[in-house]
Amino acid sequence: MSQDHPRTGLQLRSLVKPSGELQLSLESVEIPAPRANEVIVRVEATPINPSDIGTLLGAADPASALLAGTAERPVTTLVIPAAARASMRGREGIAMAVGNEGAGVVVAAGSSAAAQALLRRPVAVLAGSMYAQFRCVTLEQCLPLPEGTTPAEGASSFVNPLTALGMVETMRREGHTALVHTAAASNLGQMLNRLCLADGVGLVSIVRRAEQAELLRAQGAKHVCVSDSPTFATELVELLIATGATIAFDATGGGRLATQILSAMEAAINRGVTNIGRYGSETHKQVYLYGGLDTAPTEIVRNFGMAWGIGGWLVFPFLQKIGPEASAALKARVAAELKTTFHSQYSREVSLVEALQPAAIAAYGKRATGEKFLINPSRH
Amino acid sequence: MSQDHPRTGLQLRSLVKPSGELQLSLESVEIPAPRANEVIVRVEATPINPSDIGTLLGAADPASALLAGTAERPVTTLVIPAAARASMRGREGIAMAVGNEGAGVVVAAGSSAAAQALLRRPVAVLAGSMYAQFRCVTLEQCLPLPEGTTPAEGASSFVNPLTALGMVETMRREGHTALVHTAAASNLGQMLNRLCLADGVGLVSIVRRAEQAELLRAQGAKHVCVSDSPTFATELVELLIATGATIAFDATGGGRLATQILSAMEAAINRGVTNIGRYGSETHKQVYLYGGLDTAPTEIVRNFGMAWGIGGWLVFPFLQKIGPEASAALKARVAAELKTTFHSQYSREVSLVEALQPAAIAAYGKRATGEKFLINPSRH
Repeated sequence: MSQDHPRTGLQLRSLVKPSGELQLSLESVEIPAPRANEVIVRVEATPINPSDIGTLLGAADPASALLAGTAERPVTTLVIPAAARASMRGREGIAMAVGNEGAGVVVAAGSSAAAQALLRRPVAVLAGSMYAQFRCVTLEQCLPLPEGTTPAEGASSFVNPLTALGMVETMRREGHTALVHTAAASNLGQMLNRLCLADGVGLVSIVRRAEQAELLRAQGAKHVCVSDSPTFATELVELLIATGATIAFDATGGGRLATQILSAMEAAINRGVTNIGRYGSETHKQVYLYGGLDTAPTEIVRNFGMAWGIGGWLVFPFLQKIGPEASAALKARVAAELKTTFHSQYSREVSLVEALQPAAIAAYGKRATGEKFLINPSRH
Repeated sequence: MSQDHPRTGLQLRSLVKPSGELQLSLESVEIPAPRANEVIVRVEATPINPSDIGTLLGAADPASALLAGTAERPVTTLVIPAAARASMRGREGIAMAVGNEGAGVVVAAGSSAAAQALLRRPVAVLAGSMYAQFRCVTLEQCLPLPEGTTPAEGASSFVNPLTALGMVETMRREGHTALVHTAAASNLGQMLNRLCLADGVGLVSIVRRAEQAELLRAQGAKHVCVSDSPTFATELVELLIATGATIAFDATGGGRLATQILSAMEAAINRGVTNIGRYGSETHKQVYLYGGLDTAPTEIVRNFGMAWGIGGWLVFPFLQKIGPEASAALKARVAAELKTTFHSQYSREVSLVEALQPAAIAAYGKRATGEKFLINPSRH
C-alpha cells in the first residue's frame, strides 16, 4: 500500500441554512487509508453538469452570490427566493458534498492486485463528492482511462455519455427507430448527434436559437429545427416524417414543448391517412422529460389520440433496469470513444476557490448552452 | 339457413355537415344474407357508453338539439360550437353508424354448424354499428350468453367489464398491487369496485361529490375520497398509504387531478423517509388517462420526483397487446359473472326514435354519472 497523498484535503460543501440562505464553502476532510479494493484518486478534472448545479445551487439565485471568508477558504452565500424555500427545507443543516463524476490519477491503492494495478494510472470516477482534492473510491466506481487519455479528457465519462447511450438504447428497447432531442445544442446534444451519426440513427434536434441550429448543422446534423421560429410546428412535422421518430427526450420539462412534439408526431404518422379514428393513430408516441430547464408546469393539450406517454427519465435508474452486463458494455464503449463520439468541451477550467467566486457562479448558474465549467481541484 | 328477418332495418347515423351542424337520423339499411360463419342478430339492448357519445355527438352541443323529420323517422340537428369544428372536419359528409356493443337474439344463421348452434339464442355482440334493428356479425364478434340471461342483462358485456378487468390486469402486469380510480361512482367505477372486492385488490375511489362517496361505501368500498373536499389532498395520501396504490386510471383527463394523484403517491411513498434524494423516490408512479370528461389541458406540476409516467389507455389496444388467449380468458369471466360482478344499471330504456328526441339527448349528452341510457332498437 502506497501513501503518496496528504491525510486531509479540501472538499466543496453546499449548505442550506435555516435563515433561507445557501452557503458554499471548502471544508477540510480526512482522507482514509484505502481498503483492499479501494484507491485514492487525486481529482484533476470534474465537470459542473446541470445535474450537479441542482445540488450545488438548488433553487438559490445565482446572481445573488456574496463572497466572504479568506482567499484560500472562501465562503459564498446565496439567497434562496422565498417561494422556493419549502422545496429545499429537506436539506437544511446538511452540508452536502457535490460532483457526480470526474477523473484523476490514482495516488494510493489498497492491497488487492486489482487496486495495485491502477497505481499512477488515470481513471474516471463516478462516485459523488468529486468536487474535492482527493477521493477514496472503490474499484467498481472507477473506469480506467485508455493509454494517452488525460483526466480532463476523461472528466465527463459517465453522465453525458451514458445519458446519450441510454437514450438510444431506450429508443431501441421500446420499439422506436429514431428520436427527438430538445435543448439539442448542449454538450449532451452535440454528443448525441455524434452518436446518432455514428450509429445511423435518425435524430431530430430542437434548439431555441438559429445560431445553435448552425452549430449542430456544422457538426453534420441533418434534422434541426428552431423552437422560436414561427414555422416551427410545420418544420417539426416534416422532420418527423423524414426520420420516423416517435420518441423524444426533453430537457426543458415545463411548458408546451412536450405536447407540441406529441402533436407533431401524430400529424406525421397520420400524413396521407384519410380515415383517422376518434382515438387517433395506434402508434405509441413517447416523450421522456429528463430535465427541468423550464420549471413551469408541463401543459398537455391532448390532441394526439390515445397512444401516448410522458414520463420522467434518468440515466442511472435506466442502467439499473438493464442490469450490470448491459451497463458494462455501454461503459466500455465510452472508454473506447472518449476522444471522438464522447468528447466533451468546456468554456472554462477553474480551481475549487475560483468555482466559489460570484462571477463564476453567475456564469455557470445560468445553466446555459456553451457555459460549461470544468473544475480542477488540484489547481491552486 | 333460416331467413326469419326482414330484408332491411333501421340504423342510427351521425353526420357532420359542411354547415357546422351534426345531424342524427335513422336510415334504412339492407340486411345481407349471413355467410357460413355469420349470424343475424335482432338487437334488443345496446348501451349509450361515454365512448359511444363521442361518435354520436362528438363536440356538438347536446342542449342545442332541434327535432324535424317525421315521428317514425326523426331527423335531429345539433350545433357544433365554432371552436370545435376543426376537430370534427375529418368526419364531414360521412354518415357514421354508432354503438360499440349490444345484445340480442340470433334470428338467422349461416350454414356452419357453429353458426346454426346459435339460432334463437341470446348473444352479446362487439361489432360497432349496434344502434340498429338488425346486425349481421361474425361468430368471433359474438359472446353467447349463459342460459337465463336476457339481452338487457348482456348489453354491456364488453366495454365496461373488459375495461375494469383490463385496469386490474394492467396494474398486475406493470408491477403494482393496488390502484386508484377517478369518476369512480360511474357504472364502470361501481363495477371496478365489485371486481376489486372479489379479487382482494386495494382500490382508492375518487369521486366529486359526498353522495357519490356514500353510494360507493354502501357497496362495500373501503377507500373513497371526495375531490371537492378541502381535505382531499391529505385524505388521498392516507388512502394511498393504506392501499399502497401506485397506479391510477383517470377518466377526467384534463386539469390537475392527475398531478395531484402523482404528488399524493410520492408523499405516501416517502412517509417516514428522512433522506429523500433530489430526484424523489425510486418507485414508479403511473397515471393512465382513459377518458376526457374535462377537455382542458392536463397540467403537470412536477413535484413528485422522476419516477413517473402519464399516458393514454384504451381497453381494446390493451387486449390486442395481451393477445387472443389472455383476452378470451377475460371474456369468459365476464360471461360467468354477468349478473354479479359485471352487472350494469341504466337510468332509462329508449327506442331508436326516442334516442333522437332533444330531451333524451340533453340527458345522456351530459355524460353524467347515473344518467346511463339503454337503447332497445326492437321497441317501437
